[in-house]
Amino acid sequence: MNENYDFIKACYCQPVARTPVWLMRQAGRYLPQYRKIREGVTFLELCKTPELAAEVTLQPIDALGVDAAILFSDILVPIEPMGQRLHYRPAPVLEPPIRSESDVAALRVLQPEQDVPYVFEAIRLLRRELAGRVPLIGFGGAPFTLACYMVEGAGSRHFLALKRLMYQSPEIYAQLMDKITDTSIVYLRAQAQAGAQALQIFDSWGGILSPADYQRYVLPYSRRLLTALEDLGVPLIHFVKGAGNMLELVASAGGQVVGLDWCMALNKARDILGDKMAVQGNLDPSVLLGNQTVIEREVRRIIDENAGRPGHIFNLGHGILPEVPPENAAFLVDCVHRLSQP
Amino acid sequence: MNENYDFIKACYCQPVARTPVWLMRQAGRYLPQYRKIREGVTFLELCKTPELAAEVTLQPIDALGVDAAILFSDILVPIEPMGQRLHYRPAPVLEPPIRSESDVAALRVLQPEQDVPYVFEAIRLLRRELAGRVPLIGFGGAPFTLACYMVEGAGSRHFLALKRLMYQSPEIYAQLMDKITDTSIVYLRAQAQAGAQALQIFDSWGGILSPADYQRYVLPYSRRLLTALEDLGVPLIHFVKGAGNMLELVASAGGQVVGLDWCMALNKARDILGDKMAVQGNLDPSVLLGNQTVIEREVRRIIDENAGRPGHIFNLGHGILPEVPPENAAFLVDCVHRLSQP
Repeated sequence: MNENYDFIKACYCQPVARTPVWLMRQAGRYLPQYRKIREGVTFLELCKTPELAAEVTLQPIDALGVDAAILFSDILVPIEPMGQRLHYRPAPVLEPPIRSESDVAALRVLQPEQDVPYVFEAIRLLRRELAGRVPLIGFGGAPFTLACYMVEGAGSRHFLALKRLMYQSPEIYAQLMDKITDTSIVYLRAQAQAGAQALQIFDSWGGILSPADYQRYVLPYSRRLLTALEDLGVPLIHFVKGAGNMLELVASAGGQVVGLDWCMALNKARDILGDKMAVQGNLDPSVLLGNQTVIEREVRRIIDENAGRPGHIFNLGHGILPEVPPENAAFLVDCVHRLSQP
Repeated sequence: MNENYDFIKACYCQPVARTPVWLMRQAGRYLPQYRKIREGVTFLELCKTPELAAEVTLQPIDALGVDAAILFSDILVPIEPMGQRLHYRPAPVLEPPIRSESDVAALRVLQPEQDVPYVFEAIRLLRRELAGRVPLIGFGGAPFTLACYMVEGAGSRHFLALKRLMYQSPEIYAQLMDKITDTSIVYLRAQAQAGAQALQIFDSWGGILSPADYQRYVLPYSRRLLTALEDLGVPLIHFVKGAGNMLELVASAGGQVVGLDWCMALNKARDILGDKMAVQGNLDPSVLLGNQTVIEREVRRIIDENAGRPGHIFNLGHGILPEVPPENAAFLVDCVHRLSQP
C-alpha cells in the first residue's frame, strides 16, 4: 500500500507510520508557480479549465510533499448554475442577493455533470495524473456557508441580511437551505463518483452562530448532507470554523473527521470527540510567517497534544496565507513527518 | 440600597432580585438621540468633551432602563498621548504603526490626569448627574488588543504585522506589551479614583490566538493589569472575545467577572468557571434585528441556561449593532428583568 494513503487510514482512526499532513488552500497564491498560472487567467477561468485546475492542484504535491491533493476549485462554483451570477472582484460577489420567497423559488437545484462538467473532468484528469501518489480530496461548502454568501451577495462582517432572514422569515430561510442542501448532495456525490477519494465540507461561517442557533438553523441541513454521502465509502471531513465551543454538535452531524481551527487545544478537542472521530488541524496559519524555531515549536506542541492517538491529520486551522514563504510551508510538512515518527 | 446596584452585587456573585442588564456600546449609533449629538462633532471630539460624553452616556439609561452606565469613550484614547496620532476615517487609524525597537522606545507611558483629563472630568460629571441611579462602569482595552491596533496601525482581518512581531521579535513585542500594560494600569486606576464603580477590560482580539499562544503572549500582561487593579475595591470585568475555548485561562488572569461572547452556551461557561466567578453575557447582538418573539425566546434560553445561579449580568456578546431598532433594545432589557424574576 502506498504510504501516502496514511491520510485515508488516519481519517478512519487507523494507526499510521507518521502523521499525514496537507494544508487548506495549499494550491494558492503563496506559490510563485501558482501566481504564474494566474497571470494568464482569472480565478473563475482557472476553476473552469480542467487542465489548469489539475496543474495547480498538483503544484503543492511536488513543492511541499503533502500527503493529499485537494481539487482546486471554489465553494461557490455550484451556486452559479443555481441562478446567481458569480464574479470575483477579487472577493466573490453573487447577484442578485437572495432575500425573498420568490428569489428562493427561482433557484434551481444543480445538475452536476450538465452544469459544472469541468469539475468532474478535473477530478478524472487528476486521478490519472496522480496515479496513486496521494489521494485526491473533493470539497464543497456547507449549506449554511453557501446561504451566507447567497443572501448577503458577498462576504460580510456580521452577515446581518442572513440573520435577518433567519430570524424574521424562518420559512423562507428553510426553503433556501433545503434547496442548497439538495444541490450540495448531488454535487458532492458526483465528485466522489468522478474519483474524489475523500470529501471535505467547509462551513466557514457556522461559528458565527450561538450553539443554540447552530443546532436550530444549521445542524439539520449539515446532518442531512453528511448522511446522504455516507454510502459513498469515502471519508467525510466536516470543518466548521469557530465551532470549538460546540464540537459535540458538529460531530453529531456525521462524517469521520472533524476539522479544527487553531482556537482550541487539540487534546481538549479529542477528549470531547472521543476515540472514534478523527480530527484535522490545527496550526494557526500565521505561525508560518514566523521562523523555523517557532514553526517547529508549534508543530511539536500539536503533536504532543495529540499524544499518539490514531486519527490525526495535521493541517492549518484555516487556509494558508498568501504572505507565507513557500519554504516555511515545506518546512512545516517536513516537521510534521519528522516529529510524528516514533 | 438602590435596586440598581444589583449590577455590583451580581459582579460579586451575590443574590439579586432580578438579573441586571446593560449592553456593550449602549451609547451609540442605534439611538437617534446619539446620532443627533454626532451631527455636530466628530467621534474623537465627543470623547474629549466631558459634557457631551456624559450626555450620550446617560441616553440609554433613560431610553432602555439598563442597570449600569458605561462611560462613553474609546479604548484608543490613551494611546494618542503615548505617541501615535489617532484618526477615525471612520475606522480608527494609528500613525505611524509600531514595528521596531526604536518605535517602542519612543512611546511614553501615559500620565492620566495630565494627558487625558477629559476622561476623568466626564466620570466626575457623570457621578454627579447619575446621583446613584445606576453605577458607572469605566473601561480600557486589554494590552494585547491595544498592541494589535498599535502595530497594525488600524483594525485588521488577520493581524499579520502583530503576529510577525510576536513570532519573529518576541523581545520587542514584550517591550511594547510592558509599556502598554504600564499605561493601562495607571489609566484604569485613575478612572476608578475619579469615580468609576466597576472597570471592564476589553480584549477584542485575544481570541485570534491559539490557547497556547494566548498563555504565552497575552495572559501574563492581562494578569499583571488585573492584579494591579485589585486593591481599588471595584469589580473587574474581563471580556476576551472569541475565548470560549480557553475560559479557564481568561479567568486565571484575575477579576470578578468573565465576559462571554455568544459562541458558547452559558451553562457550559459557568460549569467551567465555577461558583466564584461571575459571568456577563451572552446574547448574539444580531438577535436584536429579529422580532419580539425571537428576542424573548433567546433571553429565556440564556436565563434558563444560567439556571438561577448568582453572578449573572445579562449583556450582548459584543457591541450593539447600529442597525438595531431602539425599541428592540428596550424590549430586551424588559425581557431580562421580567423573565429573571422568580
